[in-house]
Order: sequence, then C-alpha cells, then structure tokens
Amino acid sequence: MADLLFHRIALTLLLSLLFLFATFGSSSRTRIKYSLEKPHHPLDPLMSHEIKRVRTILSGHDPGFESGSAIIHAMALDEPEKQRVVRWKKGDRLPPRRAEVLAMSNGESHVLTVDLSSGRVVSDLVNPTFGYPILTMNDIVAASQVRPTMIQNHIINKININKINGFFGETDTICKILYILILKNKSSKNLFWVPNSVFFCSVPTWIFDNGPVPVPKSTGTEYRHGFLNETVHIDRVNPMSMEQPDGPSFKVEDGYLVKWANWNFHIKPDQRAGMIISQASVRDSKTGEARSVMYKGFASELYVPYMDPEEGWYSKAFMDAGEFGLGPTSMPLVPLNDCPRNAYYIDGIFASPKGDPILQPNMICLFERYAGDTSWRHSEILLPGTNIRESRAKVTLVARMACSVGNYDYTFDWEFQMDGLIRVTVAASGMLMVKGTPYTNVQDLGEKEADSGPLISENVIGVVHDHFITFHLDIDIDEPANNSFVKVHLEKQRLPPGESRRKSYLKVKKYVAKTEKDAQIKLSMYDPYEFHLVNPTRRSRLGNPAGYKLVPGANAASLLDHDDPPQIRGAFTNNQIWVTRYNRSEQWAGGLLMYQSRGEDTLQVWSDRRDRSIENEDIVLWYTLGFHHVPCQEDFPVMPTIAASFELKPVNFFESNPILGITPFFEKDLQVC
Amino acid sequence: MADLLFHRIALTLLLSLLFLFATFGSSSRTRIKYSLEKPHHPLDPLMSHEIKRVRTILSGHDPGFESGSAIIHAMALDEPEKQRVVRWKKGDRLPPRRAEVLAMSNGESHVLTVDLSSGRVVSDLVNPTFGYPILTMNDIVAASQVRPTMIQNHIINKININKINGFFGETDTICKILYILILKNKSSKNLFWVPNSVFFCSVPTWIFDNGPVPVPKSTGTEYRHGFLNETVHIDRVNPMSMEQPDGPSFKVEDGYLVKWANWNFHIKPDQRAGMIISQASVRDSKTGEARSVMYKGFASELYVPYMDPEEGWYSKAFMDAGEFGLGPTSMPLVPLNDCPRNAYYIDGIFASPKGDPILQPNMICLFERYAGDTSWRHSEILLPGTNIRESRAKVTLVARMACSVGNYDYTFDWEFQMDGLIRVTVAASGMLMVKGTPYTNVQDLGEKEADSGPLISENVIGVVHDHFITFHLDIDIDEPANNSFVKVHLEKQRLPPGESRRKSYLKVKKYVAKTEKDAQIKLSMYDPYEFHLVNPTRRSRLGNPAGYKLVPGANAASLLDHDDPPQIRGAFTNNQIWVTRYNRSEQWAGGLLMYQSRGEDTLQVWSDRRDRSIENEDIVLWYTLGFHHVPCQEDFPVMPTIAASFELKPVNFFESNPILGITPFFEKDLQVC
Repeated sequence: MADLLFHRIALTLLLSLLFLFATFGSSSRTRIKYSLEKPHHPLDPLMSHEIKRVRTILSGHDPGFESGSAIIHAMALDEPEKQRVVRWKKGDRLPPRRAEVLAMSNGESHVLTVDLSSGRVVSDLVNPTFGYPILTMNDIVAASQVRPTMIQNHIINKININKINGFFGETDTICKILYILILKNKSSKNLFWVPNSVFFCSVPTWIFDNGPVPVPKSTGTEYRHGFLNETVHIDRVNPMSMEQPDGPSFKVEDGYLVKWANWNFHIKPDQRAGMIISQASVRDSKTGEARSVMYKGFASELYVPYMDPEEGWYSKAFMDAGEFGLGPTSMPLVPLNDCPRNAYYIDGIFASPKGDPILQPNMICLFERYAGDTSWRHSEILLPGTNIRESRAKVTLVARMACSVGNYDYTFDWEFQMDGLIRVTVAASGMLMVKGTPYTNVQDLGEKEADSGPLISENVIGVVHDHFITFHLDIDIDEPANNSFVKVHLEKQRLPPGESRRKSYLKVKKYVAKTEKDAQIKLSMYDPYEFHLVNPTRRSRLGNPAGYKLVPGANAASLLDHDDPPQIRGAFTNNQIWVTRYNRSEQWAGGLLMYQSRGEDTLQVWSDRRDRSIENEDIVLWYTLGFHHVPCQEDFPVMPTIAASFELKPVNFFESNPILGITPFFEKDLQVC
Repeated sequence: MADLLFHRIALTLLLSLLFLFATFGSSSRTRIKYSLEKPHHPLDPLMSHEIKRVRTILSGHDPGFESGSAIIHAMALDEPEKQRVVRWKKGDRLPPRRAEVLAMSNGESHVLTVDLSSGRVVSDLVNPTFGYPILTMNDIVAASQVRPTMIQNHIINKININKINGFFGETDTICKILYILILKNKSSKNLFWVPNSVFFCSVPTWIFDNGPVPVPKSTGTEYRHGFLNETVHIDRVNPMSMEQPDGPSFKVEDGYLVKWANWNFHIKPDQRAGMIISQASVRDSKTGEARSVMYKGFASELYVPYMDPEEGWYSKAFMDAGEFGLGPTSMPLVPLNDCPRNAYYIDGIFASPKGDPILQPNMICLFERYAGDTSWRHSEILLPGTNIRESRAKVTLVARMACSVGNYDYTFDWEFQMDGLIRVTVAASGMLMVKGTPYTNVQDLGEKEADSGPLISENVIGVVHDHFITFHLDIDIDEPANNSFVKVHLEKQRLPPGESRRKSYLKVKKYVAKTEKDAQIKLSMYDPYEFHLVNPTRRSRLGNPAGYKLVPGANAASLLDHDDPPQIRGAFTNNQIWVTRYNRSEQWAGGLLMYQSRGEDTLQVWSDRRDRSIENEDIVLWYTLGFHHVPCQEDFPVMPTIAASFELKPVNFFESNPILGITPFFEKDLQVC
C-alpha cells in the first residue's frame, strides 16, 4: 500500500515535470502550491487527491478508464447549487464535492457526474448532443509530432483529405481533427512560418496542401531573446516597476479567496475557461456591508473564424475554449514581463487523460496596478483665490491569465476598481496563422490579395480573420433572484416649432426586458442604449433601483451568414448581448461538447427556443467582444500586443460616489530608494 | 526706462500671482520656467517678451489696445508655412516670428496677424465670419462674481432673459453670455450643487430660473480632502509609484522637444487646444532614419450639448475649446496624483486681455508608464521540451494635460508606444451640471424623469448630455504630400453551392478616397472598415504602401437633427471621421470665431463645399470621440473618472515587428529599496 502510494506520488511528480518549468524568479512567499491541500470553499477547484479519487471511482464504473480505452478529456468541480453556495459561510461544512467529467469511451462521448463522498458515478450521459469533448493535451502534443519525413524537399505531397476541423457534414467517425503546421526542418523554432496547412487525424494522419508552393525562408522568424542579432533602433528605455513601500494591499486566503480594498471574490483556474471569478462582492459605501455584484464570470468561448474558403482553409474556425481549453494551453506566466514584480501567482491543477493530477504552475497572477491615472479630480476655476485642486490617484487590482492556443497568445485581465467598476480586457499577441503564396511582391499578387489576405513577408500571406470572445456574466445584484434587464434607450425627439428654441434633444426611455427574446441585442451607434442589470427590490434612498451597467468598448460583429457552418456553431455571436434565465447547465455558449459540434446547443438556441421570463428573476448576461484582423507586416513574425475591453459599472448601486473619501498620495508615503 | 521696465516686470509678476498657486511638490529639476527664454524651434509658443512685443505693436496699430476699448481674447504663434517648418533643421535661423491675435474692438471681432520682426500688423480682418472670439479669463472670472444679494432667501427672482449662450437668432448685440450658477451662500465650496441656472451678460446682468424650486442642502457636496468626515468602507490600499532605478529615459530639449525610445516630437501648451503635439516622427526599424508620422495633432473642439429643451437649459451646448479655451481653464497639475512621481512638467505662457504674459505653471506633464502589461509575448506549446516562453514588458511615454472647464475636468493623454502606436485618451471627471426639482424620490418624479434626467440627489436632477471631442490629426506619412486615405472594407461574400464547404467569408476591398466627400464617414459595426492613411510613393520591400491606420475605441454619435441650432454649430460631429485637404486656416472644426457662431465655417462646410482632391495630397484626418452621459448617483457630487480613447497604429510602415528585439525585464535591472 505504501509502495503503491509512493509509486503514485512519484508518477504524479514525473507527470508534473512534463509541464513544470524551472524559471520562476518570484520569491516563494508569492506562490503557494496547493497540490496536496484540501478544499476550503464550495467553489474551490478539485484538489490533487480529489482528482485521483475521481479516477478511482471512474475505473470502478468503467474498466476502460483503467485499460485505456476510456480517456478523460475534461475534469472539473461540478459546482454545488447556487443557493447552497450563496448561503454558505466560512466555518460551515462544505456541500458534498462532485466532479464533472467529459470522457470518450469506445468512440462515444460521456458526460459523467462523480460524487466523491458516496464514491459513485451518479450520472453518465452518453452522446447527449452531437460533438465531442474538448481535446486532451496528448492529442495536441501528438499532432505536433508529425515529422518532416512526410515531406519531400520543398514540396508537400498532396494526400487525400478525410476529416477536418469543425463540422462540415461527416457523421461517421470519431476521429479527432487537429490543425497543425509542418516543420520543414528544425532550423527555425518558429513553428508558424511554414504556412502550408495540414489537417490530420490522430489515427490515421492525412495531409493536404494547396499545391506546389515554395516554403518561405526562415530569416526574420527568430524571436527568442538572445538569438536575435539585428540592431534595434530604439534608445534604451529604462526598466520600470510599480513599487509599494508597505507592500501589496490584497490578501489571498485559503488559496482562492481574494480580499482587496472594498472587493471580495473567489478566483480559480479552469481547464476550459482559463480563469473563473466567482462571488464578487463590493462593500456598500454607507454601511460597509458586502453586496453581491457577480456570482460568476468567465470566458465562455473564444471563436476565431478565418476568411479563406479554399481547400485547406475553409474549416479554420476555431473554438479555442471548447475545443482546446484555455487552461492546458497556458504556460507559466513569465515573471517581471507577463506580470509585474511583486505579483502573486496561483497554480492550476488539472487531470491528465489518465486521471493523474497535473500541476500548471503560475497560471494566474494577481497584482495591484498604478499607471499614473486619476480616480477622480476637480479643480475649481470659478472661485479664484481658493486654490481648490483635488485629485486622487487610481490604484486597481488585476487578476490575469495568459494562454497560448497554438499560434495566438491571449491574455485575460479582470481589473477591479475602488469605485465599483470591473474592467475585463482581452489582449492578443503571438503569431498569425499564415498561408503560402508563390509571390514576394504585392504587385505580382494583384487581385489575389483580396482573396485571403495581405502579403506580410516573402511568400507569406496573413489570412484575414476575426476573434470573438464571449463572456458569461452571471450578475446578481444584491441577490440571485429579483434581477431585471433594463434597456435604457436614448431616443431623439423632434420638437415642434414654438415649443423651444431647440429642435431636437435626446430623451431617455427605459424598457424592462420581459423574456429572453427581448434581450437579443446588436449594438448600434446610431440607435444607442445603456444596458442595466438592476434589482428593483433594492432601491436607493432616492428610489433608484440598484444596478450595474454593461459598458461596451470597441467591438466588431460577426458578419458570416447564419447558415455558414462555422456560424451555426458560433451562433452565440449573432448578437453582441444576450440575457438568459439562470440555468446551471447553460455555461458554454457553443454547447458542452464543442468539438465537431453542430450548433444545436448554443446560446442562440436556448434564447430562441426557451425564451424564458427574465424579469425579476435570476438572470445571466452574455457579452461578446470582437475584433476583425487584417494582418500587416508589423504582425510578423510575432505581433505587438493589441487589446480590447468592456466594463461593468455601478449605476445607482451606491448612494453617491463611493470613493469620495479616499486619500491622495503624499510624497512621504512613497518608496525611498 | 529702467523704471518702466521694473514696473512692467513687477506688473507681470503681480498678474502672474493671480494664477500662481503655491504647492507644486515636485523637485525643481523636473520643471523649467521659460518665461524669459527665446524660441529655439519654429513651432515654439510665444515667449513672454514676444507677447509683450505683440501688445506694443497692437497698441501702435489701434490705440484702443492701450486705452482698454480693444481687448485681446486670444494670442498664439501664427505658425510658419508647413514646408518651411519641415525643411528647418536645428542650427538654421528661425523663420520670422508671427502672432495671431483674436480681439474685440468697439464691438467688432478682429483677427490680426502681427509680424514681430518688422514690428507691424500685417493683416487685420474685421468680422470675417459671424461669431465672437474665445472668452477671456476676465469674462469667466467676472461671471463668478455674481453675488447672492441678487437672490431672496431660497427663491431666485425671475428676471427677464435677454441674451443666451450659443446662437439662437439674436444678432444685434455684442454682449457676451456666460452660464453660471448662483451660490446661495458660501457654506459650500461646491459651486455646482445649486442647480438653478443663471444666464448673464457682463453688461448688464440678467438672471432667469425655472420658477420656485427648493435649493438643495449642502450635505454630501463637500469633496475636499481634510474636510470630509464620513467613514470610508474601503481597506487601505497602499500607495504605489512607478520607479526606474536609472531614472526616466526621455529627454526634453529646448523646452519643447521630446525624445524617447524611437520617438521625437514637439509639444506645447495652447490657449484653445490645451496641448499640441507637432512633428511626431518615429525611427525606421531597419535603417534608424526618423520618419514623419504626424505633423500636428490636437483637440480641435469639445462640444457638450445638454438634452433639456426648457427655458434656462435649451441653450446649454458648450464648445469648450472655442468658447472657453482648454488652456486658461487648466489649473496646475497636482503632483503625485494628477501625474505620477518623477513626472516632468511644462509651464504654459499665455497673454492676458491686456497683453501681459501670464504663467500657467505645470500645465503639461510627461511621464513614462509601466502598468504591468506586455509589448508582445509568445509561448510555444507545440514544441514540448523546448520551454519557449518569450514575453516583453511594455513601457510607454505619456504626455498629459488637464483642464477644468467650469464643472467638468478633462484630461488629455497622448501615449506613445515603441511599436509605433499612438493612443489618445480623453478622461472625464469633475462635476455634473444639474437641474433643480421639487422632488426627492423617483416615484414622485414619475414621467418627468424622462424629460431631462435621473434624480441623483435630493432635489437634484443630473441632466442627460453628450460629450464630443474632435481631433485634428494632420498625419503626414513620410512627407506632407503624396498621402492618400484608403477605406479598407470588409465585405461579406456569399459562396455559391459547391464552390466551397463554407457559405460565406469576409473579403477585403480597398477604396482610395478621391475627394473630401468620399471621406465623410459614419462608423457602423455591421459595415466595418479599416481606415488607412498611406503614402503610395513609399513602399515596403514587399510593395505595401507605408501607412498608419485609425483604430476607433468605444464611441457615440450625435443624434441631434442637423438643423438644431447647437448641431448647426457642431456640424463637425455629423460624421465620426472626415479627411480634408491640408489648409493652414482650417484648424478649428467649428470655425475660428466660436462664440455665438452660426456654423458657416465648420468642418462640414469645408468638406461639402470645397470637396477637394485628397488622393496623393497633403491631407488631414479628423476624428470625433464621443460619449453619451446618463447621470447616476455615483456621479454625485464628483464623478469617478471615465475614459475613452482611439489609436493611430502603423500598417506596413515597418518591414516587420519593430519591437521584436527589445529586451525583457530582469530582476537585476529593477529598483532595490
């Protein structure tokens, strides 16, 4: 028994090494390993020993999990019922721990619920919908093992294509499809400069290409520090850090509970969403009571359709969360560069395909930010002699996760401000997905440029594409129930002659959404609205309902036809905003089983078919942040980071400005070095 | 003579004291006074002695400037011809110095050009258009002198209104109009909580109100640090600063020339625009040559229409730059809070109505920013065992100015990144303009809420309004001439059955604008474009034309009818984007003489009537950033800062990513404290 235990521990460590990287740089006090701890909060992720227990229970249920014919694709905490979590307080016993497992067994998809206390599988749905579970890391890694021996010199042989990404009509196979680029040889560590696309199936492997196309040179594709030797025509910019003489002001308790300023929230890594924020509450400015703002917030899907209908490219429309997972595709954050000095890191613990706990170190970082901006300010010019100049600096708290889904690197930030605002930012960097071309000059490319994209390096086209990140925002103003969605419409009024010297003005009219169909929204600058989530049973002293509003930032819409295969799967991007009635099974905007899904279980479908009441209910807001990407030379070989964001901002939630009384910075409080 | 000189110096100092405030906080090495220097660059603002010389020349031209019947409303450098400035190099003689003066003399508007070398007024246009010059600080300050002796107890007597803000039809007076709020008494230092609006004319004074309305209590309106005594339910957030062990990396030469990383630009304070960036150039990533990006960029107008057609409110549609000036309404930046520690400050020097130089200290600050973000990153998950994790921190340079135009405080940031991107951000804080109401609860307010705005405190309505900031962006890619404006259209294509397994995709089509009418643009998310300014005579090695693109952020459009008086004056907001042919007299989007202007000299008019060729020409981009504001309780008494921005981003300007070779941060480079 001890031997077995020892063996298991050793195996765990061995497997962990696969994903463990040496350089951290941050001091040990900023990172705590939770690989052997116990859960403290109902929403805490599965711990190592729990993952192993689940595997044991699964093996009892289906011997395939032991023999290897059944593979675990995803394992996560099956969260307790919301009411139980909301009622729970520290010191109470935890609700029973359960796990949700997505697995493949004998070619079929299984959605299993495992109860850890009773030690049983309490539910095993087989093929509940079309589609397959999220890919395993084994699948992703195996795909990269395709070797150049399959390639002749500079030409890639054309082999018959069989199975492809997404779902385009084939129904008779369980073959998993991955997109991968072939390495001509190992001279470049930059995988993505060889543009000829390859599709493959883990068993067997098929390759397809566009025909004889020269393989681009590797010059100019190196990006690793220390391997570059070009002069950089930029004067040295002196390194900088954000320093706090009294140290950071936030606390992390029990591994996942964050307390800062007037905010409290639970944070955890997640295999599919990358990072989940739960039970975010802010303190009332008059009474100090903690008030619920958001029960759960996370990236529900990351849809990236490419705009090239040719063979080899038409199927490139990725669902990075549901197909690959934003969790396992995250590598440890690079200290001092991905996150600032003094950042606090949280590790992730996931299950391997065999059910062993795998440590993903430094998956999330937390840090306070001061960027030189103000919280509020006012100078009084109309009272000369009084010298009223009031200004308050702004310090915020950032929770960050970064993933590298193949070529693209995405960073997700949840930023909390003392005035009650939450800002969610998605930043993109990494590499473009490129296509080969015989041409080295735009003049020669001619009309063809419009076909898939601009020339961004010799023989390399950057294919035009979109990014859509759909967020699940379970806003609960003061409580789960009794929330409504109010469309605050700015309507231009025409004034009749004689009534006023003005001829027009904007009038604000409020419309409370009754059912889900009232809350399927396309943003339009010439038909503007504010979007409020309010609790009409919780009113300020003036009678205004407490609420938060969604403040979109820059955005882009999906223009693909609704019957286009990728758009059927990505139908959750047919609108930028949706509001649905809370339902614990409706977490993933594209459906639970995303791989080769057919779009029958998307947010669009729920909203249309169910059309439930969303007035004075427990409701969920969905917001999609998008951007079109027409590549350019600056994006090659690695693109400078771009970012887009949206905000959740209190509206009549507080009686007045909640940060009126904060203190300005004084010289004596700052670092002496 | 010496006595006179002494007298003049003493007078200058005395007048300076009117606007000089004691507390700076920053060390003397970060601020240099330029009150007695000479100009070094053709675009340098007028120096003190030049201002005085202009006044002398004006007095010779019109004795009214001496006697006081002629008042100087604005005085600024009349910039030399662009070609001369572009050809000028350090060491060359400066082009002749000239001043442009807007004045009122005997009831008429004068636009004078004064040549300092010849000592003559070379041009004096009288009433070139309708409208009057920008207000003087005297006008603004005098308005605040209206005393409570005019008010009986809690009721403001209704006096006949005569003249009003904006232009609503009266043509027979030169009386200047200002909007001001009456102080019930001096118990509150918060001017704006007394909402009854008052209009007055400097000679004589008229007051108007909405009828008997209770004056709101002053409780809850205090905002000054040290005067508040409410508990703040926010845990202490430890002060923070951005620190660089090796100090700042930017240099400021000759007072106004900034050099940082790969950027060079000229920066100066301006009475009307607040801050002007000129001759911004970035170094080519391959050759190191300085390449022109933008000749001149500044806020051309700040239009704030309120949405209440009632008497007393219908005329509230402000043009903060053209009517008040963003320069004189700026009070010194508060160190450590408005700008971070180690910021560098630049003073402004303006002319008083009598032509004396007035110092506005600490009007602009420059600082480097590190906010914990990345410049670029990539981790390679598909090459296990290679541990490729590359990340580069992002340090930027920010140039900032803040103004307090009565109730509102605006902060303007021009942020420069090493990847060639320029980000312009407008932040708003300060106070709402409010309206009185008998009601203290929303239930009692009822339908009336839709009329002008929500209840945000007892007896206080926050009136709905818009903000539009129009930027003049004279982009000159590599040179002034040979620039074109390209609309890069993303057009959805439908694919015929059988051609592809896809049914739709986006195709990029480029349209080069021929004349100004081709470049009057309303943004639309469902009809997306990229907007490129390119130089087709300057091509990359691949043949792509060098360019920069405008990247809008969140935005809002003006919905007012085009024939509505404020919108006639604000017609430059009928589109979010315009491109015009460069013309040195077309600087101010609403026209030169903004006060009571009638809209005959706006950007809309130039673009429509002149409709000049803008293909392969010297062209100017105009972009309007807007936001709707529906107030809420959190905005009272001072609102938390909100911000919106847009970007100018290189597109095929560089041969590849210009910051590929920058160094990551290492622990050894950071502050040891």
